[in-house]
Amino acid sequence: MTDPFILHEFSPSGNCYKVRLVAAHLGLPLERREYDILRGETRTPAFLATVNANGRIPVLQIGARFLPEGNAACFYLADGSALIPHDRYERADMLRWMFFEQYSHEPNIATMRFWVAYVGDERLSDAQRAQMPAKLQAGHAALALMDTHLAGRRFFVGEALSLADIALYAYTHVAAEGGFDLAPYPALSRWLDDVAATPGHIAIDA
Amino acid sequence: MTDPFILHEFSPSGNCYKVRLVAAHLGLPLERREYDILRGETRTPAFLATVNANGRIPVLQIGARFLPEGNAACFYLADGSALIPHDRYERADMLRWMFFEQYSHEPNIATMRFWVAYVGDERLSDAQRAQMPAKLQAGHAALALMDTHLAGRRFFVGEALSLADIALYAYTHVAAEGGFDLAPYPALSRWLDDVAATPGHIAIDA
Repeated sequence: MTDPFILHEFSPSGNCYKVRLVAAHLGLPLERREYDILRGETRTPAFLATVNANGRIPVLQIGARFLPEGNAACFYLADGSALIPHDRYERADMLRWMFFEQYSHEPNIATMRFWVAYVGDERLSDAQRAQMPAKLQAGHAALALMDTHLAGRRFFVGEALSLADIALYAYTHVAAEGGFDLAPYPALSRWLDDVAATPGHIAIDA
Repeated sequence: MTDPFILHEFSPSGNCYKVRLVAAHLGLPLERREYDILRGETRTPAFLATVNANGRIPVLQIGARFLPEGNAACFYLADGSALIPHDRYERADMLRWMFFEQYSHEPNIATMRFWVAYVGDERLSDAQRAQMPAKLQAGHAALALMDTHLAGRRFFVGEALSLADIALYAYTHVAAEGGFDLAPYPALSRWLDDVAATPGHIAIDA
């Protein structure tokens, strides 16, 4: 019998959507618990003591254990499935793109989306506003790198959908909400369509 | 026969040291190729075309294939070894700490060290200087979280050294070079000593 999986999340977050997308592809039921990060609901003493001392979502609850970091939760759910390549090099290359996503993509593309579409211009601090040009530039560098990689390839690693695609899809497909125009990236746009067309796919607001 | 491993690196980088540390623990020979990132040697057309289109080190070369992202290179080298837990939850929990390292630790603690100890105060831009207080604060939050986790535990995951310890050790043990005082973190300091005392350990300047 499988442990009951509970996803502690803020549902518009791409980092949370990734986990739901993996579960959908694998047909795993997820119980969902919503926290409004705009109201500080992941910084309460109870959340910090029980769910995640780092005050962040998503956290995947597996029985009595709590697993933070969305990409780690994806790996847990997909471990042993076709979403993780069997080949040693391809498995590490999948992780390469997942680390790239957390280091070079998410802090720029997801943060811009959060600031523009969720916090709202009038509530941004001067320090946040000062970082926006650099985040736009670094975000476009990440998108251009992905576009080049995807020219002539259907998916990021090998010939099939893997966690690398799911991790990068989550915020790329809503990058326009943060001010990123994807028109200059034709291979990226084709890949977004291909990922959305895979059997088992669900939308971020599903 | 094993492929010849070549590490494309800037040797003072903790991200490169991680890969050397994993290789040392596993007794794997690494050929080393040095690039001076302060002179832009990882942004040349040749480097971008052949080694890493992202212009970053480390890159692990495995035969004719190039694997960027230090944590992915560590996973490749350690795949199937005792540095990656066999238990499914512990394996994902190890990755949790590795994603934490790239998202919440490295951009603060490694960047502060790079700016203070390698770029030098007189060459920092105003934009960089303006980010330093936030990076110091976020870096200390990461160190405090690690310290709390390590109270009563010998290593980050399970009972043995794993890639989580190696990834987090790399920049934590030189955090003082970036202005982080580790004195408030007794469990962290004990853990640093334990990691350095494990058989197979090598120093960052070895």
